Amino acid sequence: MTVINKVNVEEQAIQAKKAAKTLSLLTTEEKNAALLTLADELDTEYETILTANKADLEKGRKKGYDAAYMDRLTLSKERVEEFAQGLRDVAKLEVPTGIVDSDWTLDNGLNVQKVTVPLGVIGMIYEARPNVTVDATGLALKSGNAIVLKGGSSAITSNKQIVEVMHRGLEKTKIPKEAVQFIDSTDREATQQLFTMKQHIDVLIPRGGGSLIQAVVNNATVPVLETGVGNCHIYIDAEADVEKALAILVNAKTDRPAVCNAVETAIIHKDWLETNKDALIQIFNENNISVHGDQAAVQVIPGAVLAGEDDWANEYLSTDIAVKTVNHLDDAIDHIDTYGTKHSEAIITENVQTAETFMKLVDAAALYHNASTRFTDGGALGFGAEIGISTQKLHARGPMGLPALTTIKYMMNGNGQIR
Amino acid sequence: MTVINKVNVEEQAIQAKKAAKTLSLLTTEEKNAALLTLADELDTEYETILTANKADLEKGRKKGYDAAYMDRLTLSKERVEEFAQGLRDVAKLEVPTGIVDSDWTLDNGLNVQKVTVPLGVIGMIYEARPNVTVDATGLALKSGNAIVLKGGSSAITSNKQIVEVMHRGLEKTKIPKEAVQFIDSTDREATQQLFTMKQHIDVLIPRGGGSLIQAVVNNATVPVLETGVGNCHIYIDAEADVEKALAILVNAKTDRPAVCNAVETAIIHKDWLETNKDALIQIFNENNISVHGDQAAVQVIPGAVLAGEDDWANEYLSTDIAVKTVNHLDDAIDHIDTYGTKHSEAIITENVQTAETFMKLVDAAALYHNASTRFTDGGALGFGAEIGISTQKLHARGPMGLPALTTIKYMMNGNGQIR
Repeated sequence: MTVINKVNVEEQAIQAKKAAKTLSLLTTEEKNAALLTLADELDTEYETILTANKADLEKGRKKGYDAAYMDRLTLSKERVEEFAQGLRDVAKLEVPTGIVDSDWTLDNGLNVQKVTVPLGVIGMIYEARPNVTVDATGLALKSGNAIVLKGGSSAITSNKQIVEVMHRGLEKTKIPKEAVQFIDSTDREATQQLFTMKQHIDVLIPRGGGSLIQAVVNNATVPVLETGVGNCHIYIDAEADVEKALAILVNAKTDRPAVCNAVETAIIHKDWLETNKDALIQIFNENNISVHGDQAAVQVIPGAVLAGEDDWANEYLSTDIAVKTVNHLDDAIDHIDTYGTKHSEAIITENVQTAETFMKLVDAAALYHNASTRFTDGGALGFGAEIGISTQKLHARGPMGLPALTTIKYMMNGNGQIR
Repeated sequence: MTVINKVNVEEQAIQAKKAAKTLSLLTTEEKNAALLTLADELDTEYETILTANKADLEKGRKKGYDAAYMDRLTLSKERVEEFAQGLRDVAKLEVPTGIVDSDWTLDNGLNVQKVTVPLGVIGMIYEARPNVTVDATGLALKSGNAIVLKGGSSAITSNKQIVEVMHRGLEKTKIPKEAVQFIDSTDREATQQLFTMKQHIDVLIPRGGGSLIQAVVNNATVPVLETGVGNCHIYIDAEADVEKALAILVNAKTDRPAVCNAVETAIIHKDWLETNKDALIQIFNENNISVHGDQAAVQVIPGAVLAGEDDWANEYLSTDIAVKTVNHLDDAIDHIDTYGTKHSEAIITENVQTAETFMKLVDAAALYHNASTRFTDGGALGFGAEIGISTQKLHARGPMGLPALTTIKYMMNGNGQIR
């Protein structure tokens, strides 16, 4: 038992809740001005952040983190400038609250308005990347929410300093600095306290690996916005155009293999495979794509290894691909039902009827006809900012922009109406 | 350990999921026609339902249920006709799925449509009232969802027979009867299986008392639509019009004291109380309202008893009322923050600025200025049908109509777009 990092998580959450009230009374101009001030403060104080970051990097080297991990952890003047620019970009977006979704008057004269309002307090639980500290704060404040930040232990010194700089910035604005709470603890218990603090925290957003997200989903009684894994499929139908199919497959697999909207399994109609196997093999070779195939695929594709259950179920996040062959659309849909994660699923076909059936029957956030799964992305779709990609069905599905951080209130104005 | 009621809950959920696929391909006309057929079947077969109901009533008498409980359990020809009429009313409503929420085309020509779709499979966990069996089925099918019904043990024979009748009706329609699953078990374990069946069930909706709802919310990993308790307040400001204040207070307390949108606590500004105490005491007496007041209220209102913590925190669901006196708007808001359940909160005042501040700062589904809290109701607001009143902030808040049973899909149509 160490008490060095003992923090009063509940007291911090209560302070955030209070600050959220103040925030809800501010104008859009006041919130935007605050974001610009935070950006300036980050630019001015970047050296203190880099100094703090050195401590985390030193610790990381001692722990023997791999190069990719160290890269995500490493800050520079340019990266801090990017954080600041991110806040300036968010300041330019339309504010998602105070929007009258509907407005009607009952026969008795009672006016009813359904209006978007902030959720209140957002609990952000995340892993290594220090950019989440700034990004999440910017999106929360823009949408009128207070935020409680609980980052991973490997970046704690950097994150703490970033929040200190943002707090100094907030002191020059109308937003109380208590609207941004940093849980300065590496205790697992501190995270678990957030799971059940329904009285003070309105939503938890986990950002990180699958095990972090599942721990939050399975243990939290506070509502969760689940951003999950993407085990995405492309189904190449018997009537698929060969050029479109190959270009889309290569793009979805190799453009950025480590992201959640990359394709992991190609489901290929046997007739199409029979006709186009040479071209397919060629693009696999040209793009160094390693194939894990079912029995029929392995027989046709040189160098392919036989796929097992893991190949169908897991994300490779590399240039490996699983290849499943089918005789019918229904078999493709069954496979996706069994192994998909309801993220992004594509069909390549020139038959519009087949495409419509696929898109109706497959249960996912994004369905594609003759396009790459890579477009499931807030930036690509023009949302301006993305909190994450929801793989849940309630509240928000697919890429989440600022509106996902709001709820609604019914505002009733009367002059004595009774029932 | 009894094995008589041993049922395979997972197998039933899997069947529901399959049936949901078939449902998602049906037209609005086919779904509406099915609802009308179900209604006719209930009208034709009502006697078999009443016979089954007699068994539940006999069991209830032996268990010594009170009169109100037995009344909710009791069916008659007229009540079954009401169930059938309810299905016909739902058939007339606008279908909530297939609505294009937004539609845009990226610079590269990729068309993006955000379209409402059914959630999939709804798990309904409810207590005594057999009407839920029909109402929930109608709303689920109308919105293109399959449903798994788990009713309370006291009505199990009635519910089972109602479902059998609906199944016979469904056999005459395009909707597979597997779209309506009835868990024929009084096992607690059967309910708990539903809590974690994320693979097959998309949302759980608990309907019943607070302890049932909390058991589902706290133990389910399947997402929950929480319909909760209403500890509603009316704040009578120093600048409240006396006639409006008294009429609204009486209406919200006595119109239907047992419902969730009834008022439970009046928060009264001391200046207003001082001026209007005689009129207030008169309406309390005339309407047999029993007052549980704070120190200042008890001194002024004859017959009032001193309120304790329970009086502020719990719903009376009777003509009892708690009275809290305050010196300032902030104290009223603090009290609501501490004890409110985020359902419906009202302010009575002629000062528009004060009303606006109250409505901005109080965190609830419905905020009222100079009107009764009784309007928080799907019927009163013109929603046509109500699944429940959500006290959560994510997905749906306040009275929930058919749209709460939908989610969205992004449907992308391209001609080979890659990133």
